[in-house]
Amino acid sequence: MSAPVERGELRYEGKAKRVYATPDPQQYVVEYKDDATAFNGQKRDQILGKGSVNNAITSALYPHLERAGVPTHFIAQLSEREQLVRAVEIIPVEVVVRNVAAGSFSKRLGITEGTLLARPIVEYYYKSDVLGDPLINTDTAISMGWATDEDLSTIKALALKVNAFLTPYFLARDIRLIDFKLEFGKTHDGQIVLADEISPDTCRFWDAVSGERLDKDRFRRDLGNVEGAYQEMLARVTREQA
Amino acid sequence: MSAPVERGELRYEGKAKRVYATPDPQQYVVEYKDDATAFNGQKRDQILGKGSVNNAITSALYPHLERAGVPTHFIAQLSEREQLVRAVEIIPVEVVVRNVAAGSFSKRLGITEGTLLARPIVEYYYKSDVLGDPLINTDTAISMGWATDEDLSTIKALALKVNAFLTPYFLARDIRLIDFKLEFGKTHDGQIVLADEISPDTCRFWDAVSGERLDKDRFRRDLGNVEGAYQEMLARVTREQA
Repeated sequence: MSAPVERGELRYEGKAKRVYATPDPQQYVVEYKDDATAFNGQKRDQILGKGSVNNAITSALYPHLERAGVPTHFIAQLSEREQLVRAVEIIPVEVVVRNVAAGSFSKRLGITEGTLLARPIVEYYYKSDVLGDPLINTDTAISMGWATDEDLSTIKALALKVNAFLTPYFLARDIRLIDFKLEFGKTHDGQIVLADEISPDTCRFWDAVSGERLDKDRFRRDLGNVEGAYQEMLARVTREQA
Repeated sequence: MSAPVERGELRYEGKAKRVYATPDPQQYVVEYKDDATAFNGQKRDQILGKGSVNNAITSALYPHLERAGVPTHFIAQLSEREQLVRAVEIIPVEVVVRNVAAGSFSKRLGITEGTLLARPIVEYYYKSDVLGDPLINTDTAISMGWATDEDLSTIKALALKVNAFLTPYFLARDIRLIDFKLEFGKTHDGQIVLADEISPDTCRFWDAVSGERLDKDRFRRDLGNVEGAYQEMLARVTREQA
């Protein structure tokens, strides 16, 4: 935890986080909420303690990713629910990396959930609540001006680097990283950095032994013990490695 | 028209065509039907004369495309409803090229129908009636084994070549080529060739002056005079150029 930072005006409120200005125009404060939504906001509830768990997990992971060569927006954890981050403009293209078929991918393509993919798949979705984050491809992102060809090459390489780091990282904690969603932003000087969070809200985590879901699917699918799964993931991330 | 070819067993029946074996294992006969379906088969009817119009248009276009450097499966028109084609195994990845936003693309991305795209967009769909031909990307096609990276590079280059030929070809006939779907196949010796048809069933054609729809949207959207639109497109394709 770092020294307190003065929170300025609310810049953005998403489904799970609020973003505030700070006295430094190149820095924002991100506040993690307990609010949970699924199916494009049709299902809403609170998951007690989710905000602090997701903040703690993200704050633990991002310094590792920086050391693995992935630039991120993360500067420091400020409090249980707050992070100090670099001010970025979010690129409106969400990136999903899939190692194992699950969720919407399984449904859309008729592939049994749990099928190991021959190689990781990177997908792009247009970040739009109104449209329900539709699947797009790189041609569409470029033609619509949402990202350049070069941006997307950088983003794909970084997404695969995140996957290459996280997959063994989680496996060492008896967790299979099934798939995850990333968001990237551009700093004032044009650098593309990993933004947003990496947490049970944005990843599918399956216990490597029991197959138990330790992620937001417990909420989406009414599997029960949602809070317990989030706490378990925090415990796995913060436990010492042999 | 060519000499009659003996039709062997039915090899495949799709929504708009039947494919028959011939005495030569490297050749098939394709028969064009009047059957029309839309919305993944939920809407069904017959469009009188559609089979012969689509056969005639495709038979007129494919030799032009061959000369423009696009290898195709087309050998010869055999009769009003029949073509002789090279035997290919269809690659289960449908290719859509878009010049102007329309149809599912407009709806999915909230872009007004008729919006000119900054550059042509190539999309891929998994050819599956059961799944409703879902949108995919190249990573998915490769990981699932539906096509190789090299196949998709070839296919994309050919699809853009088809677009580069057809766009001015139709504009000279006062038709705007809005978007179109292509299918590709592999011959016994591994060559990728354009297969299937190019017709008002598989393209959006808008009159360049009036904006009138001269394609299957007349059927999908109950705009009336469906047969007239198909006949008009045949007349435009077969009319002499100044």
